[in-house]
Amino acid sequence: MNAAKPVDFYFEFSSPYGYIASRLADALEQRIGRPLAWHPFLLGPVFKMTGQAPLVEIPMKGAYSRRDFERSARWHGVAYAHPAKFPIGTVAPLRAFYWTQQRDAAQARRLAKSLYSAFFAEGRDISAPATVLDIAQAGGIDRTALSAGLEDPAVKELAKQRVDAAIARGVFGSPFFIVDGEPFWGVDRIPMMEDWIRRGGW
Amino acid sequence: MNAAKPVDFYFEFSSPYGYIASRLADALEQRIGRPLAWHPFLLGPVFKMTGQAPLVEIPMKGAYSRRDFERSARWHGVAYAHPAKFPIGTVAPLRAFYWTQQRDAAQARRLAKSLYSAFFAEGRDISAPATVLDIAQAGGIDRTALSAGLEDPAVKELAKQRVDAAIARGVFGSPFFIVDGEPFWGVDRIPMMEDWIRRGGW
Repeated sequence: MNAAKPVDFYFEFSSPYGYIASRLADALEQRIGRPLAWHPFLLGPVFKMTGQAPLVEIPMKGAYSRRDFERSARWHGVAYAHPAKFPIGTVAPLRAFYWTQQRDAAQARRLAKSLYSAFFAEGRDISAPATVLDIAQAGGIDRTALSAGLEDPAVKELAKQRVDAAIARGVFGSPFFIVDGEPFWGVDRIPMMEDWIRRGGW
Repeated sequence: MNAAKPVDFYFEFSSPYGYIASRLADALEQRIGRPLAWHPFLLGPVFKMTGQAPLVEIPMKGAYSRRDFERSARWHGVAYAHPAKFPIGTVAPLRAFYWTQQRDAAQARRLAKSLYSAFFAEGRDISAPATVLDIAQAGGIDRTALSAGLEDPAVKELAKQRVDAAIARGVFGSPFFIVDGEPFWGVDRIPMMEDWIRRGGW
């Protein structure tokens, strides 16, 4: 009965696993027969709340994670080149996404994919607003209008509200999916999530 | 060429995912055609080194994890009743395991399975040495000898050395597998690990 209801897909633009999920998203939608609603957010405020830190900065876990990013990408057949500067702040991509989404949701989704590929496959630093504008422009978005949008207090507030809303729903990692209220964290939970959808829970 | 070489299987007796892995271990060995070498360790010293904490004590992640323990167990067809007292200290099960292993490796493995089931399916507090002795005795282990063993400085030192050795190999979570030097953390990495073994890496 929820066949047409979107599955919420939360991600942070600096998250390797979020990037991998973004590359698996189209095939996932086909398999589950439901659209994904894309929601970028920021992990920084989450880390402050949970006392956690970026994976690569945690002793032991950091070295493992670096290895697992590339291995997971290879396993899923996704191009990956670990960024020289990592992790990065992603406020500019976040605001660009929500500014675009207000105008055209499909274009916002294409922009998210382009931003992710630029960072994780092409070695471009998407923390820089100028790089975000370059990528948006290449995707057919009005550079001048977006440039103004990135500095617009209303856009800043919208992006902040979306991040707050994600955290209020319990989103603490990337990627993070919510299916009819049921949360699934991580690329590695996708098979479980698909089984959950197919069987209507268990 | 590594067909007969054991895959190292590290686990903490207070870890729900380690318990689930213990219940999947026999079938996993059959599929990969290699034995698992069981190595209990302690997460406490790891948490001190990494600045991490037990999952259930982390804001946001804690509530998700509680839900995911039971959901993951159901998905894998493993009986699970979340323990009233959790997490627990597991020094007694750890020492009992290594004491037994010096005498009979197969019996130590059976003891580990019994201890895990007692804690995660039967509601028994295996942090208590008396409970560990009850479970060991029911499995055919000499209670009096094991009771003395738990207090033997040589056994304490052996158990400590095994924990130190695990951490020295980079083990920071439970379950944690090492295949020919390649580390895999989590029940959710088992499919990836199996593919790695099947294809000899990728």
